[in-house]
Amino acid sequence: MKHNLLIAHGGGPTAVVNASLAGVICSAQKEKDIGKILAARHGVEGLLEEDFIDLTDFNQDSIKRLKTTPASAIGTCRLKVREEDCGLIVKILHKYDIGYFLYIGGNDSMDTCNKIHLITNDVNVIGIPKTIDNDLAVTDHCPGFGSAARYYAVSTAELALDIQALNIHVSVMEIMGRNAGWLTASTALARKIISGGASQLIYLPERPFLEEKFLYDISSAWKKRKGIVVTVSEGLVRENGELLVNPKHKSTFDSFGHVLIGNVSQYLADLINSKLGIRARSEKPGLLGRTSKALVSEVDREEAYDAGFTAVQQAVKGMNGFMIGLQRISEEPYQVKQKLILLKDVANLERKVPDEFINEQGNDVTESFLKYICPLTGKNFPDYFQF
Amino acid sequence: MKHNLLIAHGGGPTAVVNASLAGVICSAQKEKDIGKILAARHGVEGLLEEDFIDLTDFNQDSIKRLKTTPASAIGTCRLKVREEDCGLIVKILHKYDIGYFLYIGGNDSMDTCNKIHLITNDVNVIGIPKTIDNDLAVTDHCPGFGSAARYYAVSTAELALDIQALNIHVSVMEIMGRNAGWLTASTALARKIISGGASQLIYLPERPFLEEKFLYDISSAWKKRKGIVVTVSEGLVRENGELLVNPKHKSTFDSFGHVLIGNVSQYLADLINSKLGIRARSEKPGLLGRTSKALVSEVDREEAYDAGFTAVQQAVKGMNGFMIGLQRISEEPYQVKQKLILLKDVANLERKVPDEFINEQGNDVTESFLKYICPLTGKNFPDYFQF
Repeated sequence: MKHNLLIAHGGGPTAVVNASLAGVICSAQKEKDIGKILAARHGVEGLLEEDFIDLTDFNQDSIKRLKTTPASAIGTCRLKVREEDCGLIVKILHKYDIGYFLYIGGNDSMDTCNKIHLITNDVNVIGIPKTIDNDLAVTDHCPGFGSAARYYAVSTAELALDIQALNIHVSVMEIMGRNAGWLTASTALARKIISGGASQLIYLPERPFLEEKFLYDISSAWKKRKGIVVTVSEGLVRENGELLVNPKHKSTFDSFGHVLIGNVSQYLADLINSKLGIRARSEKPGLLGRTSKALVSEVDREEAYDAGFTAVQQAVKGMNGFMIGLQRISEEPYQVKQKLILLKDVANLERKVPDEFINEQGNDVTESFLKYICPLTGKNFPDYFQF
Repeated sequence: MKHNLLIAHGGGPTAVVNASLAGVICSAQKEKDIGKILAARHGVEGLLEEDFIDLTDFNQDSIKRLKTTPASAIGTCRLKVREEDCGLIVKILHKYDIGYFLYIGGNDSMDTCNKIHLITNDVNVIGIPKTIDNDLAVTDHCPGFGSAARYYAVSTAELALDIQALNIHVSVMEIMGRNAGWLTASTALARKIISGGASQLIYLPERPFLEEKFLYDISSAWKKRKGIVVTVSEGLVRENGELLVNPKHKSTFDSFGHVLIGNVSQYLADLINSKLGIRARSEKPGLLGRTSKALVSEVDREEAYDAGFTAVQQAVKGMNGFMIGLQRISEEPYQVKQKLILLKDVANLERKVPDEFINEQGNDVTESFLKYICPLTGKNFPDYFQF
């Protein structure tokens, strides 16, 4: 008997989350057990308000355009599902004869997805991973990460070209990633992209941030070259566990208790200016890091699409309570296979950058990290001319 | 009789200044009156230190790569030529038998260029325009501007996609441009790029910035839609003529007295958070706006190349003391022709966004501005899918 499918999206958009949605639609259109393909606008918000878009007859041309559009075409949200919402959710899923519920998101969303799995009996629930932060547990990496990593790697390389052309200042660039420094680490790829490398320092939130050590690193690098790029995670913390820059306003908290972290890069640029008398500025591409169409990783986009495609197949097969994960089966050539991971094993867990990927001094990454990340960021990096 | 050519670059890099350099090299290699083609490293700094690169036999493949590399391959500087340097400059130009001196730069650099023109007799001096700020006088627009404008237009469109997908906050994005708001104005193109437009507000430094009015604009827009993109010039000034955010440190000044302006976007995001209780964040791509290879405007790149190419031809013809400007001779199809502008007519002058390009409320641009800017930013804007 046919049942309907409902797809929704939770958490921040990425450059390839629409590719996962495109994969879901394509796959669902092929399944004879699926009736309508519905999408909730703005995640669980749309679910609770029965605000659905019918994608059953979504055409091939639109799917193709959707697949290459950044951000989230169906909208997303940062709403935590409350206990008292659960009854309503069950009722609505029943009302619309939803047999398959797919949720695209990161660790908070996988928790939401698991909750919905636990309160429903006759709905097959599958999670589709999505996070630029790459902090989901168990999976080798996560759709959305490779493209953001490519954005930051290329941007860091271009920033280094600019900074070195002028050769008069330090630029501190702030990189997204609250607790996990995967994206900040990815900026190290800049040295693979521009020949001759760059004078570059990298600080991850996995290590306590020591201002004295930081200033020592900067002044040492400055003696060698007057054009330094420093990439720092937005979530840097001091030895006492406090954020380097504390948020100022209550309105910056979302319903998960996450906060909009304030301006670490400008704080550090000010520090360099005032303590070392070295001209320093800050760059903070912020959300641009996760929405660039031009700097999408093709590898990432295809993996995102495939995760969506497979999620539907698994749900129709009767799988329930799983997330589609990735397992790397070969380094050269790079190859991955999908695997099913229990939602409860990823919900609310956070994977940080492991020690073997961070250098001893805590101001760079290791070669093994570069080996890990390189294939995820795609091919055909820009070709720059350098004297 | 053969003489040598010297090329140098002053001021901030752009995405296409290397294209102008490529044009110079290509053109000079064809001229039988030119002996060596020399480039000074880091502008007048390299000139004063006789730090030259010989590009006479620079090969075609390298020229091609150079043409598409952002930043400045020969390096640039922010050094003001002092009176006491003039004698030394004349001596060095003589020593290296320089018959042709070309300087690529903005208004400060055209002043430097004019100074060198005035102190030399037997050197033909030609300026090649370069500025992302588009603030050079007399010329219709300036190489470097179109690419930065494309970067900001596409980035604003992508930011709007992201912000509207979440629909929970305001993003204030800071745009380069100290006194002239051309680049900030260019973000209005976002509404041409994404169908259905965006909830967008735009503030240029040409109008005094009134905080009360700004907060009123934000809360009015917020009532209509909970996802707003605000683009602001880094150089916003209050009614009393003071910068919105004053620089903190002496080390942030360069030798022209220009200052690294601090973080207007974060200041305004804080203001929205504290005064309106609306979740607001800031983005500040900063230098990334002028160094992106992926978002170069092809029109801009070709005009930059052509300006370099022509500069050599004019210098060889005996022209001296001019800058290569652009005159728009047709709107549809877009067509420009080059014209010679006296260096003294552009040196140190600054062209701001005229009144007819700014809306009455001072929070947007006019249709006539969009008509002006559209062709400069190139073709083939990204195609986004939207419900």
